Amino acid sequence: MNVVLLSGGSGKRLWPLSNEVRSKQFLKLFKNGEGEYESMVQRNCRQLAEALPGARVLIATSRAQVPSLKNQLGGDALLCVEPERRDTFAAIVLSCACLKYELGRPDNEAVIIAPVDPYTEPGFFGSFELLEAALKETGCALALIGSKPTFPTAKYGYIFPEREGSEPFRVREFKEKPSEAEAARYIEEGALWNCGVFALTIGRALSYARKYINFASFAELERQFTALPKISFDYEVTEREQDIRVIEFSGLWRDLGTWNTLAEAMDSPYYGEVVFGGDCEGTSVINELGPPVLVMGLKNAVIAAGPDGIIVSDKRESSYIKPYVEAMELRPQYVEKAWGHYVMISPAREGSGSSARQLFIKKDRAIGPKTRGDRSLTFASMSGEVLLKIGEKELTLKAGDSLRVAPGEEYTLSALEDSCLIEIQLDKT
Amino acid sequence: MNVVLLSGGSGKRLWPLSNEVRSKQFLKLFKNGEGEYESMVQRNCRQLAEALPGARVLIATSRAQVPSLKNQLGGDALLCVEPERRDTFAAIVLSCACLKYELGRPDNEAVIIAPVDPYTEPGFFGSFELLEAALKETGCALALIGSKPTFPTAKYGYIFPEREGSEPFRVREFKEKPSEAEAARYIEEGALWNCGVFALTIGRALSYARKYINFASFAELERQFTALPKISFDYEVTEREQDIRVIEFSGLWRDLGTWNTLAEAMDSPYYGEVVFGGDCEGTSVINELGPPVLVMGLKNAVIAAGPDGIIVSDKRESSYIKPYVEAMELRPQYVEKAWGHYVMISPAREGSGSSARQLFIKKDRAIGPKTRGDRSLTFASMSGEVLLKIGEKELTLKAGDSLRVAPGEEYTLSALEDSCLIEIQLDKT
Repeated sequence: MNVVLLSGGSGKRLWPLSNEVRSKQFLKLFKNGEGEYESMVQRNCRQLAEALPGARVLIATSRAQVPSLKNQLGGDALLCVEPERRDTFAAIVLSCACLKYELGRPDNEAVIIAPVDPYTEPGFFGSFELLEAALKETGCALALIGSKPTFPTAKYGYIFPEREGSEPFRVREFKEKPSEAEAARYIEEGALWNCGVFALTIGRALSYARKYINFASFAELERQFTALPKISFDYEVTEREQDIRVIEFSGLWRDLGTWNTLAEAMDSPYYGEVVFGGDCEGTSVINELGPPVLVMGLKNAVIAAGPDGIIVSDKRESSYIKPYVEAMELRPQYVEKAWGHYVMISPAREGSGSSARQLFIKKDRAIGPKTRGDRSLTFASMSGEVLLKIGEKELTLKAGDSLRVAPGEEYTLSALEDSCLIEIQLDKT
Repeated sequence: MNVVLLSGGSGKRLWPLSNEVRSKQFLKLFKNGEGEYESMVQRNCRQLAEALPGARVLIATSRAQVPSLKNQLGGDALLCVEPERRDTFAAIVLSCACLKYELGRPDNEAVIIAPVDPYTEPGFFGSFELLEAALKETGCALALIGSKPTFPTAKYGYIFPEREGSEPFRVREFKEKPSEAEAARYIEEGALWNCGVFALTIGRALSYARKYINFASFAELERQFTALPKISFDYEVTEREQDIRVIEFSGLWRDLGTWNTLAEAMDSPYYGEVVFGGDCEGTSVINELGPPVLVMGLKNAVIAAGPDGIIVSDKRESSYIKPYVEAMELRPQYVEKAWGHYVMISPAREGSGSSARQLFIKKDRAIGPKTRGDRSLTFASMSGEVLLKIGEKELTLKAGDSLRVAPGEEYTLSALEDSCLIEIQLDKT
C-alpha cells in the first residue's frame, strides 16, 4: 500500500510553540506507550507502521520542514520535497509522480492521501485497507474516510453519504464549515466529518496534472511545478468529481489545530514545570521553558510558554490567535535542525552585531561543511564532545573548550556524543 | 536631617520578578521624569533628594542586597549592613549606632526611619521636616506619619489620632490589619494608614538597645548583634511607648506589596513586549523576557514573566502567592550584582556538572579577584571589552574572543566598556 502524508502548515495557530519553521505536527506533547513524549508526526508514523506494517509511506513536505522531519523520523524517512509551497493539489500530484517515476509504482495502484497531523488511533490507519478495497471494488474516482461526529463544530467540513445498501456509500454532497446550529442539523441527518483522507489511483492523480503540463519523469514535473495552479485538491478535484464514495470511521479522530482543541486532547492539564494555586478550573498549561509557571484562580484558560513567547488566553478566544501572531514581528527562538535543535540566547544589545545560540547536536550528526563569509563564529562547549574541522585542521572540543572560526573558513562540527555548545556569531566589520 | 531607609524583604510576593536576592524595591517598573524605568529604591532616593536636598540618607540592609543597592544607587550610597537578618528593631538600632559612632551625629539629633519601598511622591518626603519639628516641639518619644486612607483595606495598619487642637495629634490606639468592614468603620472614625515612618532621637533609639547589651562603638554593637531580640520595632517599642504623636499626610502613598496593588499603580497595563487580543479587561502584564506575551480574552488578571518563571493569576488571588512560591524549589535565574547582573542559561542536561550564565558587566566595574578551586570557567565575549587578569597575566577579551580559567587560578574581569560575556562553569572531575 502507498500512503502519502501531507506535512504542511505554518504553525501560527499554536504559537508560541509552533512557528514558521516548527509546525504543530512537530510539537512533542503526547506520550507514547513507553511514557516518552512524541510529536504528531512521530505518533502517526508509529501508529501507521503498527496498523499497516508493509505500507510505503511518503511524506509530502516543504524544504523548511526537512530538518524537523529528519530529526524526528530519522534519515530513512521517504520525503517528497516541493520546490515551493503551492497548496495541496500540486503537492499531491508531485508525490504521485514520485511514486510512479522514482519508486516504480504502476498507474493502477492505489495511493492513500492523508494529513500528517490528525489526533487519532491505530484503527484509523487500519481502515486505509478498507478504503483501498472500496476504490478497487467500485472503480470510483475517489474514496474518502468520514469520521462519525461526536459534537457539532463549525471547524470541520461535513460529508453527506447516501446511506443505501452497505459501505462504501456514495457521497451526495459536501458542506464546508457550517455554523454550530447547522452542524447539529447535519449530524442528525447522518453527515460525517471530512478527515481529509482519500484514495485514488496514481494514474488518475497524474491525469489531473496533465490538464496543465506534460511530463514523463519526476524531474520534468518538478521543473514545471510552478505551472500547476496554486489551489487545494478539494477545490480542483473533489468538488468536480461525480463518483465519490465514503467509508465510515467511528473511532477517535480530531484535528488539534487550535490551543483549545489541543488542550482538551492532552492526557494531563499541564506539561512541564507548572504549579496550580487558588481555584483553577478547566485550565491547561504547557510550559516548554525551564523555570516554572504558577497559575492562580484561572478559569477556562490555556497557557503556553516557550522560547518564542507566551500565550495566555481564554480557551474559546484562543481559536482567533492567527491575526495577532501574523502582526507580530517574530524571529523563531527555538529551531529544529536535522542535527538537533538550537535556542537563541538574548542579544547583548539590539543592533550590536553579535548574537548567540545554544546548540544541541545529536550523537553522530554534523553541522556543515559550511562557510560564513560575513561573520566569525566562536564555539564554547558546555557538554559532550565534537570534532571541529576547520579547513584541513581537526580538533576535539570537550566541555569547557572554546574556539573561533574566522569569516570565510570552512568548518564542520561532528558530534561524537550528544553535545551542547554556545555559538557566538559576530558580524565582520 | 538624618534618614534611615529600611531595605528588607525576601521578595516572595512579587515572584517571579523578585526572588530571594532581588526584593521588590529593585524592580524597575516605573518611569522617571526622563521616561527611563527606575526601581522603587531609585525612585524614593531621587524623590527624597529632591524634597530634602541636604538630608543624610543611610540605608539599612542585609549583605544579600548590597550588590543590588550599589548597582542601582552607585558606589557612594551610605549603607549600614546587618551581620544577619534580625527584624526591624535590631536593624534600626544598628543604623542609629552607625549615625552616632561612625558619622558623629549627636544623641539629641532626630532620625527619621522609613521603609525604602512605598509608592509615593516627593511631598511625602518633604513632610519628614514636619515630623522632625513635631518631635522637637512636643518632646514625644515617637512621631509618626499617618496617610489619609482612600479605600478600606485589610492590608495596612491603622492609627487612631486624638483630633484635639492642631497637629501633631496624640495617638490613641493602633489597629493592625482589620477586616475590610472594620477598616471602613475605622476610616469613618478618622483613622489613618500607618506608613511605617517615624522620627525619634538617636539617643533614644540606642537606649532601647541598652536594655539588652552595653556598647560604646559601632563595632561593639555589631559584635553583639545576635544578642538583640529578633523582633519588629513595632512590637518592641511602638506598642509600649505612651507618648506617640502623628502628623497627617494626604498625598499619594501606597504599599505595592502584591501583584494586584502593583498592577493598579502602573502607568500602563503593560510593561515590555505585550500584545492584547480579544476582549481583555482589567488585565496587567509585565514581561521582562525578550519574546512577546500574547493575551486574549482575559479579565482581571495579572501576568508577570521573567527569567525566574511566570505567574498568571486572577488579580485578587495574586495576594495569596507566598505559600506556593515557598513550596517551589527555585534557583534565581536573574541576579543583580555590584558589577551589573547575570542571567542563567538553561543547563545542557541536569546533573551534567556544567552550567552557563550570561554576564552583563558595567563599564569600569569588575568581577574578582576570585578563585574557584572546584571548577573551571570559560569566558566567551559577545560584546564590549574586558581586561582579564589571570594570576600575573593580563589579556583583553573583545567580542568573539574566548578563554578558559583553570580551577584554582585567581582571576579578575574588569570592564573597559559595558560588556556581555557567556561564562561556562565546569565542575572539576
